[in-house]
Amino acid sequence: MMGSAMAVPAADAGHEVRLVGSPLDDAIVAAVTRDGIHPKLRVALPAGVVALPSTRAEAEVASADLVLLGVSSPGVPWAASCLGSLRADVPVAMITKGLHLSSRGLVPLPDRVAELAPLGRAIAPVAVAGPCIAGELARRVETCVVFTGRDEALARRVARMLRTSYYLPTVSADVVGVEACAALKNAFAMGVGLGAGLHERRGGVPGSVALHNWESAVLARAILELQTVVELLGGEPGTAAGLAGVGDLTVTCNGGRTGRFGRWLGLGVGLARAIEAMEGATLECLEILAIARGALQQWDAEGRRAARQLRLLRALAAIALDDAPAEIPLAALYGEGPADDG
Amino acid sequence: MMGSAMAVPAADAGHEVRLVGSPLDDAIVAAVTRDGIHPKLRVALPAGVVALPSTRAEAEVASADLVLLGVSSPGVPWAASCLGSLRADVPVAMITKGLHLSSRGLVPLPDRVAELAPLGRAIAPVAVAGPCIAGELARRVETCVVFTGRDEALARRVARMLRTSYYLPTVSADVVGVEACAALKNAFAMGVGLGAGLHERRGGVPGSVALHNWESAVLARAILELQTVVELLGGEPGTAAGLAGVGDLTVTCNGGRTGRFGRWLGLGVGLARAIEAMEGATLECLEILAIARGALQQWDAEGRRAARQLRLLRALAAIALDDAPAEIPLAALYGEGPADDG
Repeated sequence: MMGSAMAVPAADAGHEVRLVGSPLDDAIVAAVTRDGIHPKLRVALPAGVVALPSTRAEAEVASADLVLLGVSSPGVPWAASCLGSLRADVPVAMITKGLHLSSRGLVPLPDRVAELAPLGRAIAPVAVAGPCIAGELARRVETCVVFTGRDEALARRVARMLRTSYYLPTVSADVVGVEACAALKNAFAMGVGLGAGLHERRGGVPGSVALHNWESAVLARAILELQTVVELLGGEPGTAAGLAGVGDLTVTCNGGRTGRFGRWLGLGVGLARAIEAMEGATLECLEILAIARGALQQWDAEGRRAARQLRLLRALAAIALDDAPAEIPLAALYGEGPADDG
Repeated sequence: MMGSAMAVPAADAGHEVRLVGSPLDDAIVAAVTRDGIHPKLRVALPAGVVALPSTRAEAEVASADLVLLGVSSPGVPWAASCLGSLRADVPVAMITKGLHLSSRGLVPLPDRVAELAPLGRAIAPVAVAGPCIAGELARRVETCVVFTGRDEALARRVARMLRTSYYLPTVSADVVGVEACAALKNAFAMGVGLGAGLHERRGGVPGSVALHNWESAVLARAILELQTVVELLGGEPGTAAGLAGVGDLTVTCNGGRTGRFGRWLGLGVGLARAIEAMEGATLECLEILAIARGALQQWDAEGRRAARQLRLLRALAAIALDDAPAEIPLAALYGEGPADDG
């Protein structure tokens, strides 16, 4: 969906856009070709946007001036495998965001794509993060995002290629910080989402405003822990207080599947029934919490003290991976000492 | 309302609570005395909470072990005038939060109360900030707040006096930062609230999710500018990323009168009609934007460069004080350079 939504600013910025589906997207490609309307975004794509099946990926990469990858994170190896025909000096930008866990620790996805691409040369994929709901972008709502990459000048060049009156990229040099925020916001949004379920479970009326104090305390703690993770990874903690952190976390809490999943957990139905209730929707929060747990184990083994303070993240991992009760230990998180003493 | 809500954790923490009204609160005092139910919070106050008229203020202060001030900011001089009978070593804590503009610049309200109190000695009022909707606190929703004060040990003592299983104060030494966030969050919440009105004005259905990208971009910019203001005042910028900043701003955006006022402005009805539509509700955002404008003028006169970057705050002041069109210049705020280059 996000990859397709990007067709809108890309076309408005003057580019000829080829929307190539993954091997799972044949029905969407057929619908766009037939109607000009994206069946999931439910908007008409700009005139001139051509949808093509996955078999065309390598040929389209070969003729492209810019390649945007918008697969989900399990699709990254496939997408990287299509990059063999990439011409020199053609930038790759990734709508897919996140972290990969390797034996060396957490690796930002752009670095992973650079490793996997079957090219005889180094590439520096540009990564896109920040608060961006695909359906709003496709309807040209003003959207402010962050572009980052190991080659900052290239990130700047791609930002200029895609900037329109409503799609407003800024550039950050903090690849690790931006990607850590982009990935972990799903985990923390699940935590904030628990509040809606807890409220109903205590007899509150769905939708009424009655657990916002709790939700905002969890959200503020999430930003503190995002800063700690970014620092553990060698990034800039301030990134968590900007578009990639506060911006993306708040937009993710404003509806969407992660929040709905958190509500089910908060209702106390248990992990298995909460997953079932989501009817097969991709749950990025579960993927990233499994990765985060692996990183926590590595940090603990290395004796990294700051990692011990990630108590909200640990509590969320226990809820989402071990089926622990859906409770956040706020009294422990906000003890009598300074708020940041962990 | 917040002062009355505090009666709940104060009573649950084992204190005998006397709820003294301001000169404007006689009807509320009478209703609580008659029914035991607070007419605005619509909850029963704990057994033993006694409501008393303003004429009893000095006598009650004289016998108190702890004084909590919960008036609105225009009531601060009156509340301070009641402190003449305060016994030595009795702490004063302020639910009222904010900044006062003097010829020396912005003064946190606790310092202002210390100046105004008719006492022959120095006092160090403790200030309370963080995400706390009064109606939720009165219903014992977990609420995590920040206590601060010029005397940090005293802030810690008051936090221990009021801590319960659901009212969870932490302590910060950053008086200026905490108070700046507490005050300015109303201005920035008005800005985020514009989104709902802009959405409807563009034909969106009220309540549907369609301008969240815009809202989160404004919110992330607000945190950046809160950090800048805190830094200009000599506080800790990190305070803006915690409970007092991110926490309080997000809870304020989750409903309430500031958001409703922002929606009216976003609808484009103009300042006068937006104020009229609020039917006499206190609009803290207008008070603080007038104060912020005064501070901006002082900073500009002094040539403080960082103040030039406060472009969201300046835009909000123009909307709320000069009736400028309700538009946020996102393309200028998020230029092609780094997000924080102002």
